[in-house]
Amino acid sequence: MESKEKFIPTYREILKAQKKITPYIYQTPIFQNEWINKLTNSIIFFKCENLQKTGSFKLRGATNALLNYIEQAKKYGVVTHSSGNFAKALSYISSKLNVKTTVIMPRTSPAAKITGVLENNSDIIFSEPTLLDRQSKLDNFLLHQDAVFIPPYDDPYIIAGQGTATVEFIYSLGNSNQLDYLIAPIGGGGLISGTAIASKFLSPRTKVIGGEPKGADDAYRSKRDKKIYPSVNPKTIADGLLTSLSELTFSIILNKVDQILTVSEEMIVKAMKIIFSKMKIIIEPSSAVAFAVVLQYNEMFRNSKTGIILSGGNLDIEDLPF
Amino acid sequence: MESKEKFIPTYREILKAQKKITPYIYQTPIFQNEWINKLTNSIIFFKCENLQKTGSFKLRGATNALLNYIEQAKKYGVVTHSSGNFAKALSYISSKLNVKTTVIMPRTSPAAKITGVLENNSDIIFSEPTLLDRQSKLDNFLLHQDAVFIPPYDDPYIIAGQGTATVEFIYSLGNSNQLDYLIAPIGGGGLISGTAIASKFLSPRTKVIGGEPKGADDAYRSKRDKKIYPSVNPKTIADGLLTSLSELTFSIILNKVDQILTVSEEMIVKAMKIIFSKMKIIIEPSSAVAFAVVLQYNEMFRNSKTGIILSGGNLDIEDLPF
Repeated sequence: MESKEKFIPTYREILKAQKKITPYIYQTPIFQNEWINKLTNSIIFFKCENLQKTGSFKLRGATNALLNYIEQAKKYGVVTHSSGNFAKALSYISSKLNVKTTVIMPRTSPAAKITGVLENNSDIIFSEPTLLDRQSKLDNFLLHQDAVFIPPYDDPYIIAGQGTATVEFIYSLGNSNQLDYLIAPIGGGGLISGTAIASKFLSPRTKVIGGEPKGADDAYRSKRDKKIYPSVNPKTIADGLLTSLSELTFSIILNKVDQILTVSEEMIVKAMKIIFSKMKIIIEPSSAVAFAVVLQYNEMFRNSKTGIILSGGNLDIEDLPF
Repeated sequence: MESKEKFIPTYREILKAQKKITPYIYQTPIFQNEWINKLTNSIIFFKCENLQKTGSFKLRGATNALLNYIEQAKKYGVVTHSSGNFAKALSYISSKLNVKTTVIMPRTSPAAKITGVLENNSDIIFSEPTLLDRQSKLDNFLLHQDAVFIPPYDDPYIIAGQGTATVEFIYSLGNSNQLDYLIAPIGGGGLISGTAIASKFLSPRTKVIGGEPKGADDAYRSKRDKKIYPSVNPKTIADGLLTSLSELTFSIILNKVDQILTVSEEMIVKAMKIIFSKMKIIIEPSSAVAFAVVLQYNEMFRNSKTGIILSGGNLDIEDLPF
């Protein structure tokens, strides 16, 4: 069963999402760290979605979309494809709401993400770690089954759900801490799209910046040249950021995101290590990309107030890159 | 300059500490985790002092004691001995208050703790990793210098400061979440002493339990036999729990702590790993001991509400025991 109308969600849609999903998610904490402020000569607020249930912000969008399609979902079950965090989130919320779920995941996904899916009794179909094979496995599944397809980012309700993190973030900071910059990582573009819509409404003067690994810079090039480049052979440890933009996320990024900045692998590892050792929290490499932006382009952020969305913390201990 | 009157602090002393130290410390977050609740068949609240400034609860006591002795401290400077976390905490707060600090640390302390001291411009005197050598280096220092000695736990103001974590904890949980058990690790006994005094006042029916590594079980034996055994040749990865009780902490443990339970090294590592992978936060081995108690004596905690103080997160990434 192919979904659904594609439209660009407004701030109102994000507020509706917030009301719906509140019983199912955490309002995640916001941290500051003196050592990091001193290092960067700036004030940085971290919105800790790595501490969200299921270990990433993806639970927000998954919950909003599932609640929106709940009648069909209960009847036919749902299916998605995901590099891991969305799969884990959708499995979790589906099991809470008694919806049968199948996820198509690359066989190379971190065990932390695969285990998360299995624990919630979802079925897994493993694909090769290419977008092409993911898509073909999905098409094949939908040919034979009546399940509702819930895409990991290419859906207005997903995007609206992801935007709720920014609503919480900006509200909690209040008027005395207006942000000069707000940074989130870009994979398929769901998080940055929701972030930009919420931020431009609540705090128009805040610059919204997308962070992308240099080795997977399809969004950077897409925005620069105003056309979508698919993500071909991305090379980065940020396993959550390998996907391509969709028409929907691309159009939001084009209009509402001020800038995309790319970072080196070295800087991603440095960012992880600082957050690990100074803030005492676990983030996955994809999540470190936003903070790596501040480290790599430090002059730009000097003396500013910057918000960073730490998107997730699902990582195998054995895979720590240091 | 040897300090000071030794007395058993009352709850009132802890409240006074709380007022004094509030501007200098974080009110740390309290986390719950659904997966862990399911695993243990209980409800567990974690008070995250690993996310405290300087990475441990030690900042509470250090700040309270330093403020209490501030006039002398400003004039003569301060000195302490510590396996690391207290050194880091005292260095930090001293540098904020412009007090010169010298710390005596075992040369085997984790780099994360040594770096923390150096960054705050304290002097370090390295000792052998024995209590005897620590003490003799301290005595020697005090023979030649007029510094104020601030002990890491054997001081009423230190104990009162450590108790503030429990005041925050119990207040935040409120009446609807009264604890059946409250668990903290035992090293020198400063944390468990402050914890027990605060808990017995605010929530008399809560059982206060000290967690200790089996390989460093001097407090367990001391309480059992009602006499202080020094910690001789402790063998555990919990590097913060190697110290002996003092007369002061021993008498509080005897009267106010309901039980001491010892845990295996294997269980400490398992506890660390679960907290790392499910809660996405970094704790040091000493800090895992309290949660290891629930894992090892699981029957006892079934269907109960338990509070755990995660005491610190200062650990070298290279030293992860898994």
